[in-house]
Amino acid sequence: MTTLDDFKVTKIKQSKLSSVDYDNLTFGKYFTDHMLVADYANGEWGSASIMPYQPITVDPSCAALHYGQAIFEGVKAYRNQKNEVCIFRPYENFKRFNVSASRMEMPIVSEEIFMEGMKQLVKLDEKWVPERHDFSLYIRPFMFSMDEMIGVKPGSNYKFMIILSPTGPYYSAPMRIYAEEKYVRAAEGGVGFAKVAGNYGSSLLATSEAKAKGYDQVLWMDATEHKYVQECGTMNIFFIIGDKAITPDLDHGTILAGVTRDSVIKLIKDMGMDVEERPLSIDEIIEAFKKGMLHEIFGTGTAATISMIRELRYRDIVMNFDTDTWKIAPKIKSRLDDIKEGVEDDKFGWMVKI
Amino acid sequence: MTTLDDFKVTKIKQSKLSSVDYDNLTFGKYFTDHMLVADYANGEWGSASIMPYQPITVDPSCAALHYGQAIFEGVKAYRNQKNEVCIFRPYENFKRFNVSASRMEMPIVSEEIFMEGMKQLVKLDEKWVPERHDFSLYIRPFMFSMDEMIGVKPGSNYKFMIILSPTGPYYSAPMRIYAEEKYVRAAEGGVGFAKVAGNYGSSLLATSEAKAKGYDQVLWMDATEHKYVQECGTMNIFFIIGDKAITPDLDHGTILAGVTRDSVIKLIKDMGMDVEERPLSIDEIIEAFKKGMLHEIFGTGTAATISMIRELRYRDIVMNFDTDTWKIAPKIKSRLDDIKEGVEDDKFGWMVKI
Repeated sequence: MTTLDDFKVTKIKQSKLSSVDYDNLTFGKYFTDHMLVADYANGEWGSASIMPYQPITVDPSCAALHYGQAIFEGVKAYRNQKNEVCIFRPYENFKRFNVSASRMEMPIVSEEIFMEGMKQLVKLDEKWVPERHDFSLYIRPFMFSMDEMIGVKPGSNYKFMIILSPTGPYYSAPMRIYAEEKYVRAAEGGVGFAKVAGNYGSSLLATSEAKAKGYDQVLWMDATEHKYVQECGTMNIFFIIGDKAITPDLDHGTILAGVTRDSVIKLIKDMGMDVEERPLSIDEIIEAFKKGMLHEIFGTGTAATISMIRELRYRDIVMNFDTDTWKIAPKIKSRLDDIKEGVEDDKFGWMVKI
Repeated sequence: MTTLDDFKVTKIKQSKLSSVDYDNLTFGKYFTDHMLVADYANGEWGSASIMPYQPITVDPSCAALHYGQAIFEGVKAYRNQKNEVCIFRPYENFKRFNVSASRMEMPIVSEEIFMEGMKQLVKLDEKWVPERHDFSLYIRPFMFSMDEMIGVKPGSNYKFMIILSPTGPYYSAPMRIYAEEKYVRAAEGGVGFAKVAGNYGSSLLATSEAKAKGYDQVLWMDATEHKYVQECGTMNIFFIIGDKAITPDLDHGTILAGVTRDSVIKLIKDMGMDVEERPLSIDEIIEAFKKGMLHEIFGTGTAATISMIRELRYRDIVMNFDTDTWKIAPKIKSRLDDIKEGVEDDKFGWMVKI
């Protein structure tokens, strides 16, 4: 069994935990006492170190700042009713991280560094895992090229890090979104399926324009026909139509294979409902709405978990919903919460104890 | 007139110029003695500083490393026959930089900081501008978000920098390329027209696969039909067909508005040849080749200037050329060289003396 002894550990002298106001947690603003760092050079990873959270030094020519060879993951740790700290499906993030790495021609990170490093780091800072309902410790593994050279080519030097941030509820109110036809998030043959830094920076303008129009987020459409729904902001999206749940399939390389998406699919099936992963056009959605068959729309993601969508607009067509009457999204949210909190039996084996 | 006195300048004690081997200049590997830095906070830019080239410190949560809110430019300074140092069309790069900034929801950089800062920095390090033919001082302005926060949103803190790197000829041999149908560089509605970090990192895998197949680069095709040519690697591309030059137009937001591209268009027109900026399909290219009408293909860019393409492959169709017989590409290359070296009169007003 891997223990803290397998990593080079330098502990902080005094925790800054008491300085954090858990009543006013802005997402991703506060970081715990320690971080994990591993450096890749000469074709291999050096051993990972756990050290006090601190700034890093990079050369101005640091390739990641110029060419965006940078990927990340988002994972969460929860404190359950028994006061145990468990991480939600981290192995899925580990696998996806390396899918992203391959697409960006970055080195694979070992299970030892990613999984054991994460567990040991969370263990060391476990006092930071909040006890409150809907709160968690957000875990951010990331990797970027460190080459001190501005030629456009894959790097030879990389840094892998894990940082931790205590977090409260995210996007908690039901959202208003619209189908975006001007901006595109991802095209087939691109990097939409990977958790690449550039996918997020490139999406900011569309989100800001949505906010300026009074909406919370955009519903991304496919790059070719602007007809098939893709993702909602940084979340996957589900539609309850008739007695089925429908979510866009992953076959076109434009949609992130969300871990929450996969969990929601399994939970819906477990509740005896059919789930279809397939292309879903805005026309089909409007048709279902007009027939009174479109019952619920919700986004899924690690940061947000489940976000109900109370309005979807496409051009002049406005689809409104009374989320108070919904059955599926709230049920899934509460089952996910129950599994994380240890109220419901973890029959899928999702919670990994540290 | 702006002088060095308008910037806070800290000079190095001893230049490292003598340690650089100009006979073995790897592109983008060596940097000059000084750099320019300006920080944006509280809605405005602070004054720019010129200081010794040195590492920078960022928080592990630095937004640019997570979400790729990062843009750059590439500019070159040349030493002419009169031993004057001139920068090639820097104002075009300044304008394009701010186009990129707007697309990525980053703050506009002032002309004072970008243009005057660049001139003063190059002036300070002017000994680094090589005297040799085909050598130059590569200028890299760049900007990235510095926010210490991993929420996906536009930053409030940015860093703008300029670094300088002496450089020799780039991609000097005629290239072999193929039309890429699997990977896509940019889609309409995306950020292909902007000089965004993520565009480059995302392109690395396609380039590596091209190299593994024995080619130098890919010819990017449009995202929708994989039929219309876009760019070649990181360059714009020109085709001489019959008595015309044809280059893809900029109307779809997928192609970088290259400064060298614009200069080449002006030079070709100046030579009395028609230039068409319009969609150009691979079918039209093959048809022209079969009829003996496709005379030349070349890439254009700041790093490469003009790169002749001796082979273009599309599926099983191989188009080969004897670049020794070409008239246009070599003529344009030599006219650009002559203008930069001060041999030909700078009638377009491209060279900006520092």
